Amino acid sequence: MEDVNICVDGMENVKVTDKKEKKTHKAKAPKTTGGGSGKKEVKKETGLGLSNKKDENFGDWYSEVVVSGEMIEYYDISGCYIIRPWAMAIWEIMQKFFDAEIKKLKIENCYFPLFLSSTVLQKEKDHIEGFAPEVAWVTKSGDTELEVPIAIRPTSETAMYPYFRKWDRGHRDLPLRLNQWCNVVRWKFSNPTPFIRSREFLWQEGHTAFATKVEADKEVLEVLELYRRIYEEFLAIPVVKGKKSENEKFAGGLYTTSVEAFVPNTGRGVQGATSHCLGQNFAKMFEINFENEKGEKGMVWQNSWAYSTRTIGVMVMVHGDDKGLVLPPKVASVQKDADVQAICDACSETAKELNNAGFRAETLRDNYSPGWKYSNWELKGVPLRIEIGPKDMAKNQVRVVRRDNGAKEDISRTILVDQIKDLLDNVQQSLFDAAKQKRDACVVVAKTWEEFTKALNEKRMILAPWCDEEEVERDVKARTKGEMGACKTLCTPFDQPELPEGTLCFASGKPAKKWTYWGRSY
Amino acid sequence: MEDVNICVDGMENVKVTDKKEKKTHKAKAPKTTGGGSGKKEVKKETGLGLSNKKDENFGDWYSEVVVSGEMIEYYDISGCYIIRPWAMAIWEIMQKFFDAEIKKLKIENCYFPLFLSSTVLQKEKDHIEGFAPEVAWVTKSGDTELEVPIAIRPTSETAMYPYFRKWDRGHRDLPLRLNQWCNVVRWKFSNPTPFIRSREFLWQEGHTAFATKVEADKEVLEVLELYRRIYEEFLAIPVVKGKKSENEKFAGGLYTTSVEAFVPNTGRGVQGATSHCLGQNFAKMFEINFENEKGEKGMVWQNSWAYSTRTIGVMVMVHGDDKGLVLPPKVASVQKDADVQAICDACSETAKELNNAGFRAETLRDNYSPGWKYSNWELKGVPLRIEIGPKDMAKNQVRVVRRDNGAKEDISRTILVDQIKDLLDNVQQSLFDAAKQKRDACVVVAKTWEEFTKALNEKRMILAPWCDEEEVERDVKARTKGEMGACKTLCTPFDQPELPEGTLCFASGKPAKKWTYWGRSY
Repeated sequence: MEDVNICVDGMENVKVTDKKEKKTHKAKAPKTTGGGSGKKEVKKETGLGLSNKKDENFGDWYSEVVVSGEMIEYYDISGCYIIRPWAMAIWEIMQKFFDAEIKKLKIENCYFPLFLSSTVLQKEKDHIEGFAPEVAWVTKSGDTELEVPIAIRPTSETAMYPYFRKWDRGHRDLPLRLNQWCNVVRWKFSNPTPFIRSREFLWQEGHTAFATKVEADKEVLEVLELYRRIYEEFLAIPVVKGKKSENEKFAGGLYTTSVEAFVPNTGRGVQGATSHCLGQNFAKMFEINFENEKGEKGMVWQNSWAYSTRTIGVMVMVHGDDKGLVLPPKVASVQKDADVQAICDACSETAKELNNAGFRAETLRDNYSPGWKYSNWELKGVPLRIEIGPKDMAKNQVRVVRRDNGAKEDISRTILVDQIKDLLDNVQQSLFDAAKQKRDACVVVAKTWEEFTKALNEKRMILAPWCDEEEVERDVKARTKGEMGACKTLCTPFDQPELPEGTLCFASGKPAKKWTYWGRSY
Repeated sequence: MEDVNICVDGMENVKVTDKKEKKTHKAKAPKTTGGGSGKKEVKKETGLGLSNKKDENFGDWYSEVVVSGEMIEYYDISGCYIIRPWAMAIWEIMQKFFDAEIKKLKIENCYFPLFLSSTVLQKEKDHIEGFAPEVAWVTKSGDTELEVPIAIRPTSETAMYPYFRKWDRGHRDLPLRLNQWCNVVRWKFSNPTPFIRSREFLWQEGHTAFATKVEADKEVLEVLELYRRIYEEFLAIPVVKGKKSENEKFAGGLYTTSVEAFVPNTGRGVQGATSHCLGQNFAKMFEINFENEKGEKGMVWQNSWAYSTRTIGVMVMVHGDDKGLVLPPKVASVQKDADVQAICDACSETAKELNNAGFRAETLRDNYSPGWKYSNWELKGVPLRIEIGPKDMAKNQVRVVRRDNGAKEDISRTILVDQIKDLLDNVQQSLFDAAKQKRDACVVVAKTWEEFTKALNEKRMILAPWCDEEEVERDVKARTKGEMGACKTLCTPFDQPELPEGTLCFASGKPAKKWTYWGRSY
């Protein structure tokens, strides 16, 4: 069964005959989509889409599209957002995929408390240094001061690992592989942005322990591949798999791998998801030992890995356009209830036929003008719109309109199911191809500092030969600090181009050790 | 596909031939199940089950069984518990059922923030009075004091309803039906108990708004029926459906319905789940208005409803025995990874055949003595154990042992799948029947104060004629306050016995208006 999204519209053969004429109709009964300012609502009432343009004012466009597309509502606490059903359904589709995949890997779900004692939180020094400024503290219940303040988890390493110690006694208890779906809180930051940077967000966090490093290393990449699939197969977004630099790795871990996406409009990289090998560092702090077959003491090797609701924000940024959201068919989901009474039989039948074939089709609400309806469903990013008019009825066909490129096609109802399946596969692939083409067009190889700064000013994602020294990385960060924010390493791609003998680091002039992606980042 | 749990054990035809002899074996390699005290671990090493008896020391038995059965680990913050995979899997099975059912009702999932501003929290007076003492407050992030303290949700009415106001403009936007799966925090209380009373717990909370009271009333009962099904069909626990008294209803609501379970060992009722009609009270406070077809202003009718991880605790209390957990087949799930290498082919084949038929069967880990293994899987409540010995191999049969009553049966492998299905249905039904018989045996009708107090001392669930006056209810509470805790109304069952003309209230002597259940409660 495909998870897809189609809207079937039959208004034209009820009320209007000429398709072209209808498009200019004014909407009579706009549904208020919680868009906020009166200005935006007026805009929507005209059925003309958004008031901001993606290319002109990206930040405002993004805020408007997530609100008008009914994904997000701004909340009365800054940096917190309401995830509305239209976005939640996307999260659930990804969750269903990922949860089933990790269960195949014998990873079990559990739930650890939201709260951390300050004792465990502070156990790993680098870790707490990384997270301390962002931790929210509970100090009161009702009117009573707590004896000791209690932290809200920014991540759960320190909540879990004392119990890993308890549960890992012998090699038979290994590997220990747990995951939880939960909320986490990271309070302090600037520029809150829905999905991308919010004070509370939803994620899964996997935490595993192995007897050997080989097993841990293997899992890091297995999970990273699942993250790649979420981005590339579900969200139709190309990502680079690679390793984070020492400066950018997870606080307290051994090494971090990531999938890195790129937003061409802002020229910024986005860390899409991370899969960390923690090595034996936490095991040392939390004394997670085990006894092997020979009765010898060993120390476990640990991983942790996570992806979050940020995925949805990246999808909006990459695919959305001036008409609104553009949802890849695999994550699109109809959840609006339709009032089928006033919709013609042909629409209901078509929707029913498509639903029976495993698609998610929905007839549109009545009582709205075609212009408003088209605009609304475009805003919400539904991949295909099916129109049925009197001429279509006579020819036993339907007209299918693609959201991604506006292309129209008449399809005979006798072969509808197969054609729709092909068309949706095509939309999914086209979205990925278009995103990849745009992303690739932004990638620039820079071998010198001049080439590097020029590319950075052009908002590129820069692949540059690097000496792999932390000091040089910090220096680049300092030298590029400007209005747009500093440039940092995104990742060192696993897929390394050849590095000819004698290639020098673009920044230090020392011998280069690897190719690394650099850029500004969310 | 059934969700069931079977363990297939083939140790006997590898190492031992006489089944009876094996049962007295001492375990060689106990797996430390995180049981806590050394005493318990010694107990488990003998393979003899728990150190506390359900009938002798219920509280200690309960704590021991949830820990030894690997459902819960006590956490370093009092009143918070770790939900381990064995319990999480039960939660997920119920969640899958309930989520699919509410989606059929066109209820959509969403996610509102964990945090509440004190302004919205205090908007509904009765509501905040009910929850204020339990609210946890965040006052600090990093080292910085927040300008205004922020509350952690004890429930989300006040987080959501300002946005219901925003989203409900016209009758076309109604009904508005949302649900979220999340954690909530209620800090202040005595006697924390895993699953039953914890400071943080997982639940779903549904929040809906309708144009008319008729629609709201209908939904209240539809959802209550789903809660009954969770208890009776999945957890095999009989419940009473009914209405809460004015004293016991949801703070700020119009009326509350509930499913009430009963724990015979302690003689206490348990509020299993609640479905509230909020009336127009919150709508008034939050100004949730809409315009009907005629352009007239109306005010919405609202419901909210929830069930939580408490369900799992009730299941443990009702079905568990001195050997450990007893899981109803429908919620039992094998998640332990099995090392199949040392397990005989017959076991693997049998497990494979059962898994292919839609059951969840698992071969047991090797390297443990049969005595320890039996004890461990009994502790964890697996509904059926399948043993295969040399004689069974010769006869092409297996021996099946039921967890609930210990009954053994030899089944030919040629008809295994059908027989196992029947047997599991039988176990599920038997558990419910046994629980119902025990519960029914605890129900007593009391018409006078003397009968009432006698029954209360005998730990009964009391059905009594009541005048329905709040003051009388408060008076009963005050008069029964003793070591065991006060008695209160559980619910007024929808299924009312006849109330003959002239029947008097057991407590006030005034004319009785209804039959109501009374008892001590969790």
